[in-house]
Amino acid sequence: MKIIGYAAQSATAPLAPFSFERRALRPNDVAMEILYCGVCHSDLHQARNDWGFSRYPLVPGHEIVGRVSEVGSEVSRHKVGDLVAVGCMVDSCQVCDQCRKGDEQLCREHHTQTYNDRDRVTGETTYGGYAKHLVARQEFVLRLPQGLDPSRAAPLLCAGITTYSPLRTWNVGPGSRVGVIGLGGLGHMAVKLAVGLGAQVTVLSRSADKRSDALALGAHGLLVSSDAQAMAAAQCAFDLIIDTVPVRHDVSPYMPLLDVDGTLVIVGQVGPIDELVTIPLILGRRRLAGSVIGGIAETQEMLDFCAQKNILPECEMIRMEQINEAFERMERSDVRYRFVIDMASLPSSYAWS
Amino acid sequence: MKIIGYAAQSATAPLAPFSFERRALRPNDVAMEILYCGVCHSDLHQARNDWGFSRYPLVPGHEIVGRVSEVGSEVSRHKVGDLVAVGCMVDSCQVCDQCRKGDEQLCREHHTQTYNDRDRVTGETTYGGYAKHLVARQEFVLRLPQGLDPSRAAPLLCAGITTYSPLRTWNVGPGSRVGVIGLGGLGHMAVKLAVGLGAQVTVLSRSADKRSDALALGAHGLLVSSDAQAMAAAQCAFDLIIDTVPVRHDVSPYMPLLDVDGTLVIVGQVGPIDELVTIPLILGRRRLAGSVIGGIAETQEMLDFCAQKNILPECEMIRMEQINEAFERMERSDVRYRFVIDMASLPSSYAWS
Repeated sequence: MKIIGYAAQSATAPLAPFSFERRALRPNDVAMEILYCGVCHSDLHQARNDWGFSRYPLVPGHEIVGRVSEVGSEVSRHKVGDLVAVGCMVDSCQVCDQCRKGDEQLCREHHTQTYNDRDRVTGETTYGGYAKHLVARQEFVLRLPQGLDPSRAAPLLCAGITTYSPLRTWNVGPGSRVGVIGLGGLGHMAVKLAVGLGAQVTVLSRSADKRSDALALGAHGLLVSSDAQAMAAAQCAFDLIIDTVPVRHDVSPYMPLLDVDGTLVIVGQVGPIDELVTIPLILGRRRLAGSVIGGIAETQEMLDFCAQKNILPECEMIRMEQINEAFERMERSDVRYRFVIDMASLPSSYAWS
Repeated sequence: MKIIGYAAQSATAPLAPFSFERRALRPNDVAMEILYCGVCHSDLHQARNDWGFSRYPLVPGHEIVGRVSEVGSEVSRHKVGDLVAVGCMVDSCQVCDQCRKGDEQLCREHHTQTYNDRDRVTGETTYGGYAKHLVARQEFVLRLPQGLDPSRAAPLLCAGITTYSPLRTWNVGPGSRVGVIGLGGLGHMAVKLAVGLGAQVTVLSRSADKRSDALALGAHGLLVSSDAQAMAAAQCAFDLIIDTVPVRHDVSPYMPLLDVDGTLVIVGQVGPIDELVTIPLILGRRRLAGSVIGGIAETQEMLDFCAQKNILPECEMIRMEQINEAFERMERSDVRYRFVIDMASLPSSYAWS
C-alpha cells in the first residue's frame, strides 16, 4: 500500500512530503486512515537525531487518531469504521513477564516504537503518524471511546499516558498532593489528569507568570520555585511531583518539597540531570524515579477515564505543511499546549508519487 | 552526675579525656553504665566538623551497649541490671504522625541526636557513648535480647538498623535479589541482614579482591563493577541495591542493574553524588532513594531478629585511648568491619576530674 507522509531525510533537513509503502495486512493487523496526529517534543528530537539513534527517512508521529479502513482475517478487536488510536508502541514480545502483566512499554525484548524502529517480523523501518495511513497489529490499536472529541484526543496517546501512568503507579487519588514541574504538553496533561483523579494539584514554575494558566487548567495553586520563602514554606507539601522538564536541570531544590516517602518522577528529561544532594532523600526517605508512557491496558483505561471525565488536551490545530514552523514554535515553547496535525490537510497523493 | 568520657575540643584536636555532667534523672530517664560503644564513620565526620554543624566539646558515640544503673520514678520498661542499648536518637516529639507510626527518625520536629545535638528540655548539648555513663529517656532505650553477645552488639545500633530499615521498607525476603555496594561497617551488616532475611545477596566491588570476604560474610556472589561484561550481564539482576559508599560517587552505572521497579537506596553518602543519567530510571521505572537509621520499634525488631538468627557484626575491640589511631585506620578502611570500644578500658575517674 503506497502512502503519503512527511519525513525528515536527514538530521538537518526540514520535514517534506514522502511517499512510502505500508505493509500488506497480516492476519492480526488493522489499517486506519489517520485523522489527527499530535506533535510531541520527541518528534523534533528524533527528526534532528538529538538522541543519536535516528534512521532516515524518518516519519515522526506517535499520537495518532484514525478510523479503521481495513482489518486482517483474524482481527476481533476492531472493525472497519471504528475510531481508534495508536500511541508510542506498535508491538512487543507479548510473552515476557512485563508484557503479561500489561507493562508492554517495559517489555524485556523492548517494545517496537511506532516510528524510527524496526518491525519485529520483517526488520523494516517503522514509520509514524505524520502520514495518511497506518498499519498496526490489533493488540496495539486502542479504542477511542464515545464522547472523546477525536480532534483533541491525539495528545493523550503520549502526553496523556506518560503523565497518567505515574499518577496511577504512585496511587494518586482524592487527598493526594501532587506537584507538576513544567507546563507544556506533558505538564498541562499532568495537571488535568491529577485534578481528574481528585488530587490537590500545584504547578511549580520559575515565575508567577503562569499562575492564571495553571488555574485555568484546573490546578489549585502555583508555587514559584525562585521564591525561597515560598519554597521553604512548601517543605513536605507533596506526595508526588511529576517533573516534565525536557532539558538538563537540577532536581535538588524540589526534593525537600516531597513529604516523607514521597517521589519525584522524571518523565521529561532523557539524559543527564545535575548533581544531586542526597540529604533530602536520606532524611525523608524520599525517592527519585522515572517513568515511560504506560501499558496498553492502562492507556485504554486512561482514554476511558478522559471520556468519562471530559478531560482533553489543549490543542492548536495545524495543517501538515505547517509542521516545520510548528517545530520552531515548539522549541520556543510557543504553544498552548500541543500542536495537532489535521491530516485532512495532507493530500492522498502527490503528482510525483 | 560527673562523668568521664572522650571528647574533641575542636575540629582539629584529637579526642582526649573530658569530664562533664550528665543530667540528674528525670522521672522517665534511665541511667546506664556503658559497656561497649561502636565507632561509626560519622563519629569521625562530626569530630572534625566535616558537616559544618559540630559543637564542641563533642563526645561522639551512638552505638551504645550498657547495663542499667538507675531508673527514674516513672520508668516501667527497664530495671536496674538490665542489658540495654541506645542508638543514634535519644528523643523526638512523640506526637507527630511520624513518631506515632514508629518512624521517630523522621520526626516532624527532628529527633534529638545522641550527641552533638541539644536536649529538648534544657537545650544542653547532648554527649554520646564515648563515655562511662549515659542518661536517656526510657522510650529510646532498647532491650538487648538474651543471646546477643553484648561485646559485639553495639554496631547494630547504627550500622545494623541503617541497613535493616531499607531491607524492611522495600520488603526484602526469601527470593529477593539484593546488591550491596561497599563492604565496610554498613555494607557487611547489609550482607548479613539480607542473607538472614532469606535474600540472594551479591556484593558489588570495584575489584575481585573482596570475593572471599564477601562469601565469608554469607554473600552468594561478588560482582566486579569494573568488569563491563559482567555488569552488562547483570542488567535487571537486583530488586534492591543498598549503596553504603560514604563519599561522593557515581550511581549511574548501578541503575541498570536494578530490575523494573527496583530501587537503589543510598545510606552512606550524605552530600552530593555525581550527575545522574535518567535513561535507566525512565526505561525501567527504577528508583533512587535514601534512608536514615530506623524507628525505635524497628530497631528493637532488628535486635530481636539478630538474636534469633545469631547475626552479629564483625568487630575489632579497642581500648578507649586507642580511639585516635582507630579513626586514622578507619579513614584508610583498615578495619574489618567495625571498631568497638571496650569501655572497661576507660577509668571511672581521672586525677584531675
